Amino acid sequence: MECQNCQDREEHTCDNQMTGTYNGVIRHGHIQTNLGHTCGGYSRSQTVNERYCISIPDSYPLEAAGPVFCAGITMYSPLSHWGAVKGGMNVGIIGIGGLGQMGIKLAKAMGNNVTAISTSLNKKEHALKIGADRFVLSTDKESMDGAANSLDLVLNTISAEHQLGPYLSLLKRDGKLVQLGFVLGNHQVSQFPLMMKRLTIAGSLIGGMLKTQECMDFCAKHNIILDTKMITNKDLDQVYKILDAKNDQAVRYVLDIEKCN
Amino acid sequence: MECQNCQDREEHTCDNQMTGTYNGVIRHGHIQTNLGHTCGGYSRSQTVNERYCISIPDSYPLEAAGPVFCAGITMYSPLSHWGAVKGGMNVGIIGIGGLGQMGIKLAKAMGNNVTAISTSLNKKEHALKIGADRFVLSTDKESMDGAANSLDLVLNTISAEHQLGPYLSLLKRDGKLVQLGFVLGNHQVSQFPLMMKRLTIAGSLIGGMLKTQECMDFCAKHNIILDTKMITNKDLDQVYKILDAKNDQAVRYVLDIEKCN
Repeated sequence: MECQNCQDREEHTCDNQMTGTYNGVIRHGHIQTNLGHTCGGYSRSQTVNERYCISIPDSYPLEAAGPVFCAGITMYSPLSHWGAVKGGMNVGIIGIGGLGQMGIKLAKAMGNNVTAISTSLNKKEHALKIGADRFVLSTDKESMDGAANSLDLVLNTISAEHQLGPYLSLLKRDGKLVQLGFVLGNHQVSQFPLMMKRLTIAGSLIGGMLKTQECMDFCAKHNIILDTKMITNKDLDQVYKILDAKNDQAVRYVLDIEKCN
Repeated sequence: MECQNCQDREEHTCDNQMTGTYNGVIRHGHIQTNLGHTCGGYSRSQTVNERYCISIPDSYPLEAAGPVFCAGITMYSPLSHWGAVKGGMNVGIIGIGGLGQMGIKLAKAMGNNVTAISTSLNKKEHALKIGADRFVLSTDKESMDGAANSLDLVLNTISAEHQLGPYLSLLKRDGKLVQLGFVLGNHQVSQFPLMMKRLTIAGSLIGGMLKTQECMDFCAKHNIILDTKMITNKDLDQVYKILDAKNDQAVRYVLDIEKCN
């Protein structure tokens, strides 16, 4: 909690490495303990410094809070960092999965004009229903051309290999493309479009603790809640099979730890 | 002069395409004329709308002004856009040619701590002499490691194929790498470092007219002058041979159009 990044309340970028919620080695400060590793949402409880606690407002359903701490902050942090939290921007969201749905709801509640961008036309109806002002089908040239030079900020949730060039064409001068998904391979990036329109390619990962609390409070205030389905440990194998099938579930599965045994 | 970019005084990013100083088709507004193409500094005179004139302060040597309109604004614009004009930042300049020397002088005069970065150790003495606080040899692992996580803004003037990864490692959290040179091939970019430190890769190209006047006035106020050598048309063939040999000339050749015949 002493490095410059921690002092700046960007604890997730700690110079001494953050302790992940899942599978992180349990430490006291810089010192690794022999207490094993963190188990995140599979734990009945965890002991942390108060700085790492988030208060969930009474009005907010507990079962909806889980996704706020991953999908929520992952989208809220870049929206906040690049100025969309004040509204009035043209924001694009690429990929309408768990992150993307949260992104649409957050960006809209902040007062932005929101464009949902997907490879699947069957995401259109749902995207518009949850708040998107416009839908762009990224596999369709006409749809992409119609949206060229229109966006200030694009949050890209794709976690498979993909080309960045087509998405850069959606940006206005000084526009920003922010990469949020884990992609193993390298991107092929031409710097020509970056130079001609002073564009930015950036990345972002969850967020600091103050920002996470801000995100939680924002979700409560604006009633931003993803669809959830409560499950217990008995359902886990089946749920993992569903997720493995890349079924693009619009619903978030929430493990009810009280009901597990 | 009517598109949003022109209205924002970023004329070089005009939606209807800027008219280049060199080899640009001569237009009136959107309309192409049959008046041929622009010849830049090879012209005795050019007729332009007053909006595209820059006033050179009386105190500033005319022969030094030419490089201000290319190397100067190319470096001044990103320094200004990304906040270094107020000083107090750690700024890196990659490549100590014409752009790089201008970048060192400008960034230093703005009150920043300046790191010169080059593949050639023989650039060190000159870089420090013209204002750099530190020299990093990019081909030397120890030198690069010693500068890791230290820079807020890095202006990259390299115009040959190169890896971006090593330069990204020099950036602090929220650091920006700005690409300024023309590079034909694609860069191989891993988004992992971008995500872990919320880094930016951006591009920039010369600057708008207001910013160019600001740059000219700044150079005059702070006596920022590159070494120049006056030549006439008789010297041109020889000068091009010298430049073709990639001789890394520290001097800028200036064509004295009055003395040409």
